[in-house]
Amino acid sequence: MSNALLDRLRAELGGEAVVTDSDVMATYSRDQMPLAPAGTPLAVVSPEDAEGVRAAVRACAEAGVPVVPRGAGSGLSGAANAVDGCVVLVTTKLDRIVEIDPDNRLAVVQPGVVNQALRDAVAKHGLFYPPDPSSYEWCTVGGNLATNAGGLCCVKYGVTADFVLGLEVVLADGSVLRTGRRTVKGVAGYDLTRLFVGSEGTLGVITEATLSLRPLPQAPATLVAAFPSASAAGAAVSRIVREGVVPSLLEIMDAATIDAVQTYLRTDLGTGSQGGALLLCQSDTGGAQAAAELAAVESSCRDAGAEMTYHTTDPGEGDLLMRARRVALTALESMGSCMTDDVCVPRTRIAELVTGCERIADDVGLTVAVVGHAGDGNMHPTVVYDPTAEGEFDRAKRAFDAILDLGLSLGGTVTGEHGVGRFKQEWLAREIGAVGLDVHRRIKRALDPGNLFNPGSMFSL
Amino acid sequence: MSNALLDRLRAELGGEAVVTDSDVMATYSRDQMPLAPAGTPLAVVSPEDAEGVRAAVRACAEAGVPVVPRGAGSGLSGAANAVDGCVVLVTTKLDRIVEIDPDNRLAVVQPGVVNQALRDAVAKHGLFYPPDPSSYEWCTVGGNLATNAGGLCCVKYGVTADFVLGLEVVLADGSVLRTGRRTVKGVAGYDLTRLFVGSEGTLGVITEATLSLRPLPQAPATLVAAFPSASAAGAAVSRIVREGVVPSLLEIMDAATIDAVQTYLRTDLGTGSQGGALLLCQSDTGGAQAAAELAAVESSCRDAGAEMTYHTTDPGEGDLLMRARRVALTALESMGSCMTDDVCVPRTRIAELVTGCERIADDVGLTVAVVGHAGDGNMHPTVVYDPTAEGEFDRAKRAFDAILDLGLSLGGTVTGEHGVGRFKQEWLAREIGAVGLDVHRRIKRALDPGNLFNPGSMFSL
Repeated sequence: MSNALLDRLRAELGGEAVVTDSDVMATYSRDQMPLAPAGTPLAVVSPEDAEGVRAAVRACAEAGVPVVPRGAGSGLSGAANAVDGCVVLVTTKLDRIVEIDPDNRLAVVQPGVVNQALRDAVAKHGLFYPPDPSSYEWCTVGGNLATNAGGLCCVKYGVTADFVLGLEVVLADGSVLRTGRRTVKGVAGYDLTRLFVGSEGTLGVITEATLSLRPLPQAPATLVAAFPSASAAGAAVSRIVREGVVPSLLEIMDAATIDAVQTYLRTDLGTGSQGGALLLCQSDTGGAQAAAELAAVESSCRDAGAEMTYHTTDPGEGDLLMRARRVALTALESMGSCMTDDVCVPRTRIAELVTGCERIADDVGLTVAVVGHAGDGNMHPTVVYDPTAEGEFDRAKRAFDAILDLGLSLGGTVTGEHGVGRFKQEWLAREIGAVGLDVHRRIKRALDPGNLFNPGSMFSL
Repeated sequence: MSNALLDRLRAELGGEAVVTDSDVMATYSRDQMPLAPAGTPLAVVSPEDAEGVRAAVRACAEAGVPVVPRGAGSGLSGAANAVDGCVVLVTTKLDRIVEIDPDNRLAVVQPGVVNQALRDAVAKHGLFYPPDPSSYEWCTVGGNLATNAGGLCCVKYGVTADFVLGLEVVLADGSVLRTGRRTVKGVAGYDLTRLFVGSEGTLGVITEATLSLRPLPQAPATLVAAFPSASAAGAAVSRIVREGVVPSLLEIMDAATIDAVQTYLRTDLGTGSQGGALLLCQSDTGGAQAAAELAAVESSCRDAGAEMTYHTTDPGEGDLLMRARRVALTALESMGSCMTDDVCVPRTRIAELVTGCERIADDVGLTVAVVGHAGDGNMHPTVVYDPTAEGEFDRAKRAFDAILDLGLSLGGTVTGEHGVGRFKQEWLAREIGAVGLDVHRRIKRALDPGNLFNPGSMFSL
């Protein structure tokens, strides 16, 4: 049966599009979340067009072989991880920007287009594709769509889903569904576009997307503010939100993160007292407007107890200030192995999350550094551990889970942008409850009755 | 059976919540779209809380009696119209604003809250709930959610769906589903929130919504521009989009609309030559920023051939300028009966839509006036006819359908904001195609296997 499927895939897609070499397959068998389980695929196939995707899906459906769709593999939930005996369907060769329409501010792209490539291409037309997950230099739009990827831009611009007008999707029966439209508005039928965005490859394979674009913003002005405590930084975030300023970036780093970055960069960030926290803020509205926004943010920070604030309209200097944030995870990884959470909490609960993480760190005797998107409450508490030290992995996992628990208890979600995948299924069930899970299963069964796509990911049938 | 159901509903909801008087029921049997069919209900029930909704749904499900959910009845597609023998479930008594949380910029509301009441309540906290369908003074948030209502705000702020963080929904089996979250971001599972928003009461009854809010904008600055032709006005819209300005309002009125408004208001709008068109534009960013935005818009209008432009930062004068747009439909209704389309086309195709409507008007020998949300391409071509004149209704309907056809041929959708309901089922099928319709049916069957909610609306099983 398996051999017959391989023969059919080779016949329909061409021999080079079908890989069965175990070393090569291993590189396509998991994403960037090392803790999620991964199986051994039967084959890895890389169709070159939507017709190829359709042929592969049909062949697998008829053979009863599961399909795990996959982009560049930058995911952080194991949602692109192989299951034993599956066909991994890689969409990176569908990498064409089909159309850029500046007058309607939209682009039509295939799923294999790299996020950065799209950003660069539309920038030439004075346009902006905001979603900016940290892997933007190599992740693909298809993966961004499947996981509803976020990034630093979300505080002002929202997530990937907010930029999707329509999709072309190959369904489990091989039929091709077109969702959405090219127009700005439209209410003809259910919002199937949003159903597929973020469904982590469990409902179909996206073969084309129509994306809305924004005008290219101005070069950012940047502000950094140092606080004596995470509570003070959290209070500043609440003040900024209440004052009605919508910055284009608002990030927080706690004391443990600042320590790690200072060690890694061999520099003093000038944050003053121990146990403090940093806020980094940008405005991309330009000129007097940006100056007014940052002045308001600065005032909110001072009122909340900031010990130091500094701002610049020079993009180069702003980049330098942002470097501390950008290297944060790398700095933490230089200290050991990392488990990075992505809980999202109401913005008023950020300080409680940070102090809660300090408690958890004390409990397990490990470093937990909190860095995150303060403007939308999406935090990345990161547990640092030594995988070779007896019992440390277990303690790290205990801390990781305790942080998810804390996030839920603060009215948050277990995943703000990384997704559920093969790693947080039980946490999804806990967050959405029995009725929510039942509705997920009913929808999955309705669209993929044979459980063809990504079986066991997100939830089990 | 029916009597047993009435007894049960009276026992569970209280006698006053169950109406069977035929005159009263008639007022609850249809919305504001006179062309959609409406049946005679068995009863109209008005529960006072979510538990009452649940009890009514369970009782109807067990009796096999369809449920048609309904808000204030301001809809324009017949989606709230009764079917024979159904129970109309009115949610207007669930009218509590449960919570306003300024620091997290969100509100929790019951479905019966009137749009304007919510706007007023959050404005006291310096916050803004943008969705502004033209019935905002009396339509309810529940109806806005069910139809994914739009309005004038959409060009800058988006539609109702863009402001929904989470929902509480009573499903066909009487279970209570909670979708979404209170946080800004979240990717835990499928986007069930968006599936229910815009589903026109076919999948469940919304009993609570968590809505995101924006900072209250500044008082608007207003610009009006008169063009010698619809083509020139359409070209101006494309220029404005391309220049990257995002006004808070951008409306168009064609020559037929201008004529009707001038007659109705007994005034000369000073638009110059016959056959012209007007653009109305506002910016709500305030001060220098608003001045700069309107200056850019003015320049785009001039470049596209505007014969006259005028702008003001005085809100009162702006209101006066906007009056021409606000009275447009009333002015047209004073000329006869109206059939109002709501096709949405790519913004570059607006001029073609207007000139196409002129052709259609000539063909059928009736006035077709085009007014609409130019900033997002959502147009309201309105066919004016005399219902007492032999054959005029049929000709009006032919024009109405020809406009839908034209909208689709321009790459648009048959409904930008009014919905499908009991009026555009065949057009939905045509727009989304066989696969799209099949997916709709599969989802409906998965969530409402007994076809309890709003049967025959949007599509038939």
